[in-house]
Amino acid sequence: MIALDEMGRRAVTAKYMLQTLTEDKKNQALLQAAKGLQEGAEEILAANEKDMAAGRENGMHMGLLDRLRLDKGRIDAMAEGLRQVAALPDPVGRVLEQWERPNGLRMKKVSVPLGVIGIIYESRPNVTADAFALCFKAGNCVILKGGSDAIHSNMAIARAIRGSLGRAGVPEDAIQLIEATDRETTAAFMKCKAYIDVLIPRGSAGLIRAAVENSTIPIIETGTGNCHIYIDETADVTDSVNIVINAKTQRIGVCNACESLVIHKKIAGAFLPALQKKLAQGHPVEIRGDEAVCAILPEAGAAGPEDYGTEYLDYILSAVTVNSVEEAIAHINRYSTHHSEAIVTDNRENAEKFTREIDSACVYVNASTRFTDGFEFGFGAEIGISTQKLHARGPMGLPELTCYKYVIEGEGQIRQ
Amino acid sequence: MIALDEMGRRAVTAKYMLQTLTEDKKNQALLQAAKGLQEGAEEILAANEKDMAAGRENGMHMGLLDRLRLDKGRIDAMAEGLRQVAALPDPVGRVLEQWERPNGLRMKKVSVPLGVIGIIYESRPNVTADAFALCFKAGNCVILKGGSDAIHSNMAIARAIRGSLGRAGVPEDAIQLIEATDRETTAAFMKCKAYIDVLIPRGSAGLIRAAVENSTIPIIETGTGNCHIYIDETADVTDSVNIVINAKTQRIGVCNACESLVIHKKIAGAFLPALQKKLAQGHPVEIRGDEAVCAILPEAGAAGPEDYGTEYLDYILSAVTVNSVEEAIAHINRYSTHHSEAIVTDNRENAEKFTREIDSACVYVNASTRFTDGFEFGFGAEIGISTQKLHARGPMGLPELTCYKYVIEGEGQIRQ
Repeated sequence: MIALDEMGRRAVTAKYMLQTLTEDKKNQALLQAAKGLQEGAEEILAANEKDMAAGRENGMHMGLLDRLRLDKGRIDAMAEGLRQVAALPDPVGRVLEQWERPNGLRMKKVSVPLGVIGIIYESRPNVTADAFALCFKAGNCVILKGGSDAIHSNMAIARAIRGSLGRAGVPEDAIQLIEATDRETTAAFMKCKAYIDVLIPRGSAGLIRAAVENSTIPIIETGTGNCHIYIDETADVTDSVNIVINAKTQRIGVCNACESLVIHKKIAGAFLPALQKKLAQGHPVEIRGDEAVCAILPEAGAAGPEDYGTEYLDYILSAVTVNSVEEAIAHINRYSTHHSEAIVTDNRENAEKFTREIDSACVYVNASTRFTDGFEFGFGAEIGISTQKLHARGPMGLPELTCYKYVIEGEGQIRQ
Repeated sequence: MIALDEMGRRAVTAKYMLQTLTEDKKNQALLQAAKGLQEGAEEILAANEKDMAAGRENGMHMGLLDRLRLDKGRIDAMAEGLRQVAALPDPVGRVLEQWERPNGLRMKKVSVPLGVIGIIYESRPNVTADAFALCFKAGNCVILKGGSDAIHSNMAIARAIRGSLGRAGVPEDAIQLIEATDRETTAAFMKCKAYIDVLIPRGSAGLIRAAVENSTIPIIETGTGNCHIYIDETADVTDSVNIVINAKTQRIGVCNACESLVIHKKIAGAFLPALQKKLAQGHPVEIRGDEAVCAILPEAGAAGPEDYGTEYLDYILSAVTVNSVEEAIAHINRYSTHHSEAIVTDNRENAEKFTREIDSACVYVNASTRFTDGFEFGFGAEIGISTQKLHARGPMGLPELTCYKYVIEGEGQIRQ
């Protein structure tokens, strides 16, 4: 096992090489890595079987076991993901702005890689390949720290990619995987500021909080989504019901799912029973509401204040009634995690007020919050969804994995 | 004295109001604040006299005393700074990108304020007014924590501005100043993540390090500059000497001053004596070089490896010789703080290699590193110079005090 310091030094050496790769060379390496994953399928599947056996032994849930499981089809999908990233435009070397100063200096703002990106993740082993591909295409080295459940799978995937990079004439250290899975290593990883430019934690709220509190590396917070939908006085009831059901139930455990309804008092009597009726036809959803909600829906339970701030990731929905769009905005800005919120309305003015005053990464008018996603946005890729304001907000694609530098050319200018 | 928590809550309330202010209203408030500073000059000068008296009593250096001192002219200059910020274009509400998705969703990426900005600074009292003006124009609330040396001056300035904001019908809490000056308060301030969106520490390396290690709020690192100038084989000797002297001696204590020379071996014999000769005509500068440098310049001292990584902020310059532009780039990327570096050359290819491979915020060809400055870049303002890669790099003007959100409009779209 390689020490963190040594991995850091290797990454820094590799990052300077990566920054000089042409788009062609990067794409060739990605295609080679895709091939390498498919050719190494047997080895990857054998490693995955070790993780699966350990999972079964530890009594891992069926759902988690399914997330962990790889098969030929899933490896093909991983390889296909790499090919798709190869086909995306290179985000590096774009001239973002250029101008000339009165003293003749020619100024250029150019997009460049971030450098070394650290990623801590707890999820499926395919993230190992996906995260590498995005970081690499944007000219970055990546150091990955996956979960212990998938360690053998992750190691096999990283090994296959490293071998392919070597064959493509590109530094293998473009991807490094931390093999230790203890918490001490994670804590030490968060302090490797000397080598790592940006740290992206992807996973549970606990992981994100640990990174916020302990990392000395600048981080991008991802993921937590207590998303609201506000049903305005003039909303179309059918649209409202469809949007809420889609946002709540289409996928239950995702950050862009709706967790809380805010309902104008004047429409609550028409909307809530219609919602309840349609919900009854699908998976049951428990509604926890304020007094007005409970008066209209006898099935609803009483919401406590902690409900309004909770990301359930479950078949539960909190609901509160308000007298105006202003009250709705105040409630949402107070309880939201600033991820995604929607208004359903026929009132142009209220829609504009809502989109202007709601302080969230993505604000929707008459659409489901479930669209907050790099692919749905048309980015062709996604490394995560940022819920902080620094650097990137909302779905992050390739351009969000770059920064910029200024290149200034003169003829001997000195400052007066 | 108001508790930090209470200040945080006030800032959050004010930030939502600020986000809805029109450009006109913001400009009127800035002009009112400028007037308020001039009308309150007497009170501000009396407060400043208290700080000056304490400084003299504590044996403060002449240079620091001069930085601390306010007079009528300096207050006028502060007011003029506010008026200049009022005249700059509003960075908020710009549509940065817009596109339509195949499902009909209309996507817009719009610039918005960051929210609440915390600034910790150790410098002159005019920063109180400057930092407020920039944050405010970009629609942000600011909570300021100045140094204890200037506390009375800072309080008087903040009071004058708050009064003016009230008269302009704008929330006074757009600017709040922390009156406690102990380290415990600073440490607690760095943990106010619930209220503050971004923290900008401006000051000594020690302050920046403390913020990196302790802040749970996303920070923007500013300031440290171990800036290099590389004299390439084909450099014009006269240009090289002029640029180095300007970058080293024009202002000694600033982050964009040159601290280290990297010299191609083939030009060292012509360049170094010419530099020494010109330096002898001005303020003496101590040169600490490698063997080759010392062989050419008998006056030079021997550089230790710690010299190459030191930001002297003094009349000292380290110097190392290299055999190629590649060696120069490797040396600089190793020792630099990634602030500003320059190449002096007549070789187009080497210039391009240098600007492509040097990993710094600002990379110059044939110009002084002293141009790294918001005003010199033409930004019309500057809140600091970022040396990190997340969010902003190099001089930060008004746009760097904003982030963005996505506004998505549909007609009932749900995700498939």
